[in-house]
Amino acid sequence: MATSGTAPGLEGVVAASTQLSHVDGERGELVIAGYQVDELAEQATFEETTWLLWHGELPTPAQLEAFRADLGRARGLSAATIAVLRACAERRLGAMDALRMAAGTLSLESDEAVDIVARVPTIIASYWNLRRGQEPRPPRRDLDHAANFLYMLDGEAPDLERVRALETYLNTVVDHGLNASTFAARVIISTGSDLVSAIVGALGALKGPLHGGAPGPALEMVFEIGDAARAESILRKKIEAGEKLMGFGHRIYKVRDPRADVLARAAERLYTRAGDMSLYTLARAVETEALRLLELYKPGRRLQTNVEFYTALLLHGLGFDVDLFTPTFAMSRVSGWIAHALEQRRANRIIRPQSEYVGPRDRRWSARRSVL
Amino acid sequence: MATSGTAPGLEGVVAASTQLSHVDGERGELVIAGYQVDELAEQATFEETTWLLWHGELPTPAQLEAFRADLGRARGLSAATIAVLRACAERRLGAMDALRMAAGTLSLESDEAVDIVARVPTIIASYWNLRRGQEPRPPRRDLDHAANFLYMLDGEAPDLERVRALETYLNTVVDHGLNASTFAARVIISTGSDLVSAIVGALGALKGPLHGGAPGPALEMVFEIGDAARAESILRKKIEAGEKLMGFGHRIYKVRDPRADVLARAAERLYTRAGDMSLYTLARAVETEALRLLELYKPGRRLQTNVEFYTALLLHGLGFDVDLFTPTFAMSRVSGWIAHALEQRRANRIIRPQSEYVGPRDRRWSARRSVL
Repeated sequence: MATSGTAPGLEGVVAASTQLSHVDGERGELVIAGYQVDELAEQATFEETTWLLWHGELPTPAQLEAFRADLGRARGLSAATIAVLRACAERRLGAMDALRMAAGTLSLESDEAVDIVARVPTIIASYWNLRRGQEPRPPRRDLDHAANFLYMLDGEAPDLERVRALETYLNTVVDHGLNASTFAARVIISTGSDLVSAIVGALGALKGPLHGGAPGPALEMVFEIGDAARAESILRKKIEAGEKLMGFGHRIYKVRDPRADVLARAAERLYTRAGDMSLYTLARAVETEALRLLELYKPGRRLQTNVEFYTALLLHGLGFDVDLFTPTFAMSRVSGWIAHALEQRRANRIIRPQSEYVGPRDRRWSARRSVL
Repeated sequence: MATSGTAPGLEGVVAASTQLSHVDGERGELVIAGYQVDELAEQATFEETTWLLWHGELPTPAQLEAFRADLGRARGLSAATIAVLRACAERRLGAMDALRMAAGTLSLESDEAVDIVARVPTIIASYWNLRRGQEPRPPRRDLDHAANFLYMLDGEAPDLERVRALETYLNTVVDHGLNASTFAARVIISTGSDLVSAIVGALGALKGPLHGGAPGPALEMVFEIGDAARAESILRKKIEAGEKLMGFGHRIYKVRDPRADVLARAAERLYTRAGDMSLYTLARAVETEALRLLELYKPGRRLQTNVEFYTALLLHGLGFDVDLFTPTFAMSRVSGWIAHALEQRRANRIIRPQSEYVGPRDRRWSARRSVL
């Protein structure tokens, strides 16, 4: 079999053709099923975005209504899934571990895409409550996907502004080419396996700190600075100490991550509405100073604000604890993972690269036995 | 970013350097950490093989003793893991689904390699018993890995011949380059994630029918033939009807799979010892006829006996039901998956290929809204 040489991390190797999303790092462009991310994220409901990815077209009003109803009906968890979450809560495990374990047990009841997407937020919110010593709150059928998630977290019917902010976030991060978690889902489904197996593999990959999607540290940096007047001195110290500035720089985007602007605008609306702009204003000042200093200290590196910086600000504005950030990212991305799994199934070929053997040869068992 | 073109299924693309195993499909050779598969498989205990893969060298007697003791101590399952298996048994789910779900919950207690390898057989045997309406049998510390598995299945202290046959099988299939499940494990661990996440992803990939490792159908074909005198007519009918002969042909091996000989010899010993050679003799006759007819009907295709043909015969000789075949394969391969995960960790780079966008562009949300 011919080999085309080793590509560390498969960087630059094309492993799939997709109609789902297109990332152009030089132009700072993210296209989701034909729409620029800002246009889609700010206007679609999460149900519309999910349908768009799964079917290639936006739903008709009748399809959308049926899809919302299907999601609403499918939100409940089995007793076995809740029991796993209780066991995780007793041991005070991280939310991503609990989500991965509980999501695995969704196979007890269904392997349907709509059931998986409907239940992931219930898992996250149930675990959030269990970790606080509260009983999980039953989901509501009458609310949309994002609204029901907010309701399950705190028991209050959310206002439209908060729902719209969460939907904008969910739409913004729903898909992003072949990141490692999406690729894991495609590798697993390529053997002919089931959707839950693919999603559980993707959740496992997402958990790793090299994956991205963990916006907590960016927010912590803003809080650490605390006052725009201190931004320059603290940021200079960090850069001079060789620290990475959290929320800046991306493997692919060499200009501003197009998702950052969408989320910055959504955050601005949310904080404006809430009546306290101080954190938003501070974050903007930190961003401006960070970009100035990064260009000064690392000219030509083109380190730009990434999606995590404003994700952190937006989710904090929604009242989310840092522990909820990555699970909420997963709640969005699960729609993208499933879209990729379905796409892989439609034109499947098992994904099976080669390894190159660099180990010993010609060892003899008998030689060892005589030594012992 | 430069791209090196699309490689469907990443065939021929080298995605990892490894010291674990080397598959040479033209020479019919499988090297495991420096040893030819037949030499290792027929002589090592499974503990030795696992240690060899994880450390690159066979253990000293003291290391081996400590490793056996560690495995023995770690075999028990948490109540939460057993509860998941009970829920699976109530719903009569497949053994691979149950294994994947229960293995996911191992994170409740540990992410250590030795704990995962110790507990996977306990999961498989516990589920086997639960599906038969029996309580799971507690594992024994005093038995080795293979012997304890046989004990847990049927409650009898196994004789050495059966233990040796199972160990030979486990050693034979423990690792085989970058198959799809092993690759899934490496993709997941490459984000910095945990071992259980990687193993659960691999189990999900292994479940798919395109993966291989499902030897049941090969055995069913032998039973269907039933009598050597009917082999030619039945096999001819299958080939002429365009059916694949199960147990023959391999994506990589173009000569006889080196694992087939190891397992054929082990099966011969097992059936000889049991005193009834009829099935073994029938299988040999079926193999001879199948190879003759494949060369006749498909000259140049080089379809040879693969590992599944004699796996089926060997595991059946051990008294295993067909439903246990793939889980038993997984019980072996988990040592290989972990070895790959540890190797990936030691020289890690996130595995993240690219996708090529072939979807629509320039869709406008406003255009849609005016249509509705």
